[in-house]
Amino acid sequence: MDGQGNGKEVKLLGTWFSPYVQRVVWVLKLKGIDYEWVEQSFRDPKNRSQLLLKYNPVMKTVPVLVHHGRPVLESLIILEYIDETWKNNPILPSDPYDRAMARFWENLIDQKITKILSKLLSSMDKKQMEEEMKQVSNTIEILDRELKAKGNKFFGGHEEVLGINIFDSQNYPFIAQWKTNLLEFIQQCLPPKHRLLRFYRKYRQSKL
Amino acid sequence: MDGQGNGKEVKLLGTWFSPYVQRVVWVLKLKGIDYEWVEQSFRDPKNRSQLLLKYNPVMKTVPVLVHHGRPVLESLIILEYIDETWKNNPILPSDPYDRAMARFWENLIDQKITKILSKLLSSMDKKQMEEEMKQVSNTIEILDRELKAKGNKFFGGHEEVLGINIFDSQNYPFIAQWKTNLLEFIQQCLPPKHRLLRFYRKYRQSKL
Repeated sequence: MDGQGNGKEVKLLGTWFSPYVQRVVWVLKLKGIDYEWVEQSFRDPKNRSQLLLKYNPVMKTVPVLVHHGRPVLESLIILEYIDETWKNNPILPSDPYDRAMARFWENLIDQKITKILSKLLSSMDKKQMEEEMKQVSNTIEILDRELKAKGNKFFGGHEEVLGINIFDSQNYPFIAQWKTNLLEFIQQCLPPKHRLLRFYRKYRQSKL
Repeated sequence: MDGQGNGKEVKLLGTWFSPYVQRVVWVLKLKGIDYEWVEQSFRDPKNRSQLLLKYNPVMKTVPVLVHHGRPVLESLIILEYIDETWKNNPILPSDPYDRAMARFWENLIDQKITKILSKLLSSMDKKQMEEEMKQVSNTIEILDRELKAKGNKFFGGHEEVLGINIFDSQNYPFIAQWKTNLLEFIQQCLPPKHRLLRFYRKYRQSKL
């Protein structure tokens, strides 16, 4: 890789530790899309690749997906773009209501969990931290209640079709296995936990 | 209307002054969808309708679209739901890349303009206000540059199809007229400007 990402039809500009970048990686792999990875330097903004400056000159944020030379920005928008362009292994359900629900939950998790946790990483105000952590745990509580109420009704919106639980491992061992594989797949794609922990601890210390 | 919104297949729970609610109203009208409007009290949270407490018990925010008794939350998600459910007069372009671009701009305007302006309405910190207003004008500058660079390439993503400007008023008077009508239509749907101004001035004063 030459850091310019020349060559492949699909390029992904990212940093290895970002959860926003990670979920794009999962979906590219899930769909079997061949892509070129263009790592961006986090510490040295001057060291950002020419590709990032070219494709996201204003915000300089990652992930950036470049497809046939055209950039797509913002991770959730990238996920929808991938899902609409490569139709195999769909990530959003096909029913409009289920799609709306999936978008609602991903949006809630982004706004009320991931974004707040990211902000807290560089926060020093103890009172603010406590208040925001309360918001995060409130959201997790809502998610928990929802999972309890809907049972398995996550992962593509419809595990129950016409009253049949398609994740039932006794009746539908292959689908149940697919669900297990999906979780394993995501775990395999994640960077090693100790590496992530070390990185985020260092980052936090640098802010204190 | 009984404030419970019984009757119609589609109900919209909202407040008259909210830009987030307004854009749902535009799209419902644009698509000719018959709906029941259920106004929510802004001043008195106790006075919120039973429907809002039923359909959005945790956040109690508007807009809420209720379709066949099922709630859809968050205005951009509601817009996509409407567009996917009622296919006439599409609001998003059909090409995946144009869709991604449309989502990117609506997201940028929401996050970097509308949300900041809403927050500033109840802010008293002059320095913070100045900083955030700078962010807003930076975003407007980006939008302006983009419009300049792409010419008419807004409104559904494709005014130029195969090099033909479909908004050219000389060659395509009907499409050009449709664009004018769309802008007029949105203006007609807006609450009267003096009413909006009075409301937001009062709201701001109550926070100072």
